[in-house]
Amino acid sequence: MVNGQYKKMLEEKSIIRQLSEFAADRGRQIGYENVFDFSLGNPSVPVPEKFTEVMVELLKNRNSMELHGYSPSLGIASVKEKIADSLNRRFGMNYTGNHIFPTTGAAGAVAHALRCVTSPGDEVLTFAPYFPEYNLYVNMTGAQLKVVPANTQNFQINFEKLEEMLTKKVAALLINTPNNPSGAVYSEETLKELSDLLSRKQKEYGHDIFLISDEPYREIVFGGLEVPYVSKYYDNTLSCYSYSKSLSLPGERIGYVAANPKCRDAELISAICGQISRGIGHNCPPSIIQLAVAEVVDQTSDMSVYEENMNLLYDELTSLGFSCIKPGGTFYIFPKALEENEEAFCRKALAYDLVLVPSGSFGMPGYFRMAYCIDTEKVKRSLPVIHRFVRENYQ
Amino acid sequence: MVNGQYKKMLEEKSIIRQLSEFAADRGRQIGYENVFDFSLGNPSVPVPEKFTEVMVELLKNRNSMELHGYSPSLGIASVKEKIADSLNRRFGMNYTGNHIFPTTGAAGAVAHALRCVTSPGDEVLTFAPYFPEYNLYVNMTGAQLKVVPANTQNFQINFEKLEEMLTKKVAALLINTPNNPSGAVYSEETLKELSDLLSRKQKEYGHDIFLISDEPYREIVFGGLEVPYVSKYYDNTLSCYSYSKSLSLPGERIGYVAANPKCRDAELISAICGQISRGIGHNCPPSIIQLAVAEVVDQTSDMSVYEENMNLLYDELTSLGFSCIKPGGTFYIFPKALEENEEAFCRKALAYDLVLVPSGSFGMPGYFRMAYCIDTEKVKRSLPVIHRFVRENYQ
Repeated sequence: MVNGQYKKMLEEKSIIRQLSEFAADRGRQIGYENVFDFSLGNPSVPVPEKFTEVMVELLKNRNSMELHGYSPSLGIASVKEKIADSLNRRFGMNYTGNHIFPTTGAAGAVAHALRCVTSPGDEVLTFAPYFPEYNLYVNMTGAQLKVVPANTQNFQINFEKLEEMLTKKVAALLINTPNNPSGAVYSEETLKELSDLLSRKQKEYGHDIFLISDEPYREIVFGGLEVPYVSKYYDNTLSCYSYSKSLSLPGERIGYVAANPKCRDAELISAICGQISRGIGHNCPPSIIQLAVAEVVDQTSDMSVYEENMNLLYDELTSLGFSCIKPGGTFYIFPKALEENEEAFCRKALAYDLVLVPSGSFGMPGYFRMAYCIDTEKVKRSLPVIHRFVRENYQ
Repeated sequence: MVNGQYKKMLEEKSIIRQLSEFAADRGRQIGYENVFDFSLGNPSVPVPEKFTEVMVELLKNRNSMELHGYSPSLGIASVKEKIADSLNRRFGMNYTGNHIFPTTGAAGAVAHALRCVTSPGDEVLTFAPYFPEYNLYVNMTGAQLKVVPANTQNFQINFEKLEEMLTKKVAALLINTPNNPSGAVYSEETLKELSDLLSRKQKEYGHDIFLISDEPYREIVFGGLEVPYVSKYYDNTLSCYSYSKSLSLPGERIGYVAANPKCRDAELISAICGQISRGIGHNCPPSIIQLAVAEVVDQTSDMSVYEENMNLLYDELTSLGFSCIKPGGTFYIFPKALEENEEAFCRKALAYDLVLVPSGSFGMPGYFRMAYCIDTEKVKRSLPVIHRFVRENYQ
């Protein structure tokens, strides 16, 4: 019989999915250019040309059996070394290829990292607001996700609440900086305080506490900000990365887990990820995608459009009286809704063909998320519409 | 702390992997051309040219955001339709795109199908000899794999033993035709008898029994043999396919689960697979690989070399007195070893730089597997070596 647990999951439809389906339907009615769809985090800039060149080069010149043959089960050694070298060069780390496990994006990386360092019954902590898929990634391991309330001043960490919740049952923390949905970037100060607390608790409890750092937006930062590299601050860190956003290729499903060389069992993490992957029949990301990405590890797409869009929206929203942290990165902004019930707020916006995501599913009611990975021209056209929506409903 | 279950799995090293590492080491010592490595099932013929052309075409002419953007979580609709159409045309089925779920090869397909139709505590039956990774795919679901002893006459099904083991606890059967390692192809007669038995037992027990059909070798058959399409014979069938072997691109990890339109909850299987995939953060196979494969669904690489190799080996082995079923397909042959202890037999062969896989891990002692997806020239050079090995040890 069909598995009941999965069947039940089908009933819980993602709100983001529903909204993006609404936007698509509405687009068919009134023209896509007239729907201001801020629901989806799909990159809106092209892949770097070099990636396409490398792909074509591989297809034309590489022996096809070598190119399309089985990747070693822990990933292609030369690819892992190039990723390690790039991280070492940029962040002063000491990875070797053996610390890198190629995955299907950051989602795959986080799901593997969680299975690596938790056992059923453990607790995993994350921080509101958080990416709703974390619920699933954690629940499927048999561990339990607990959400530390936000520091709503600046979306750094609420250390008081964290310390309360950081009991002996906690095996891992899952953080996301730059953050989806808030756009906040953890400061060096935050990471140092976090590291101190975790180190102290590890000693107190006599067991490891892993930090799983979900970093798909690491390269999308604004105003010349430097994103501190999380793993530099705490040894028991597994960094989860995706090239989806930085290279604009989310459909190609490529990223990695990088185990800090000083973390517990550092030399085993990659091999354990291999076992996890084997159990689901997945094995590695496709050979050709691994090989192509390895040639552009230090590049990104031209992401200046995201900063331009952010500034346009931030200025408009704050001038309209929205309370809002200025994003340090990502392509999201997370203002407070103008009424307590953020679902009602977002529902009213739909009447203006403004598709905003209510914040409930991010573990934090009262806010909404806008994904501004769309054309700047459209962002500009949305500003008077947002203005009209606010004036007609809240002024 | 690092998960103990996975850590333990690392200790159980695959014999096939060990042998192929031996072959690589030995190759470095004496030259690869002098090692007769029959250990690995890595296709030895090029990908069809059309696949490469389509990939280059997509990279050069398709808008990169569209090409590399997120695939819908259940796969790209046009791709699923092309796969369904091809199956309908070739096998007289009535699939729609909604019955097809793209996966990372047949391994991913089998692992997803198993999670779909079993629950922890269920039993899954397979048949000796069987692909050793089945243990892992089944164990990771919380179900238990039980192995029905072989029909050693012809490697069809031992129905007497099957009926004994087909208790009420059995949720699914996992079959593999053409079979790795035996090369046997289930006849229409076998499939009809299997279908009758399963239908009878479904009625008797009052619950569904699913047939998971692992078919990565469906296109590699010899002597003009037609492989009966399993799903035609039994409605509760999930067909698991890979393009790895037929298109020679195992590294690109692409295949699918096809749910028989008449199976229980047929309209939900794909969506449930989507939930399973989401839980491991995998989502879909890469967009570009999905799109490219969809254009060559009716093609295969030129696989005549496998038949030539099979005939050379079969003739030599039988003339040397080996007891051996003539493979109807795949690129494997599975003769009986010349002594009871097949590991000792294979160890002795290594002294001749003949790398043969002992059959223990296939759930059936006393045999050995040869993977003949290697150059015919090398197969020819191996024949006198096999001859010498047998003469010096067993005559």
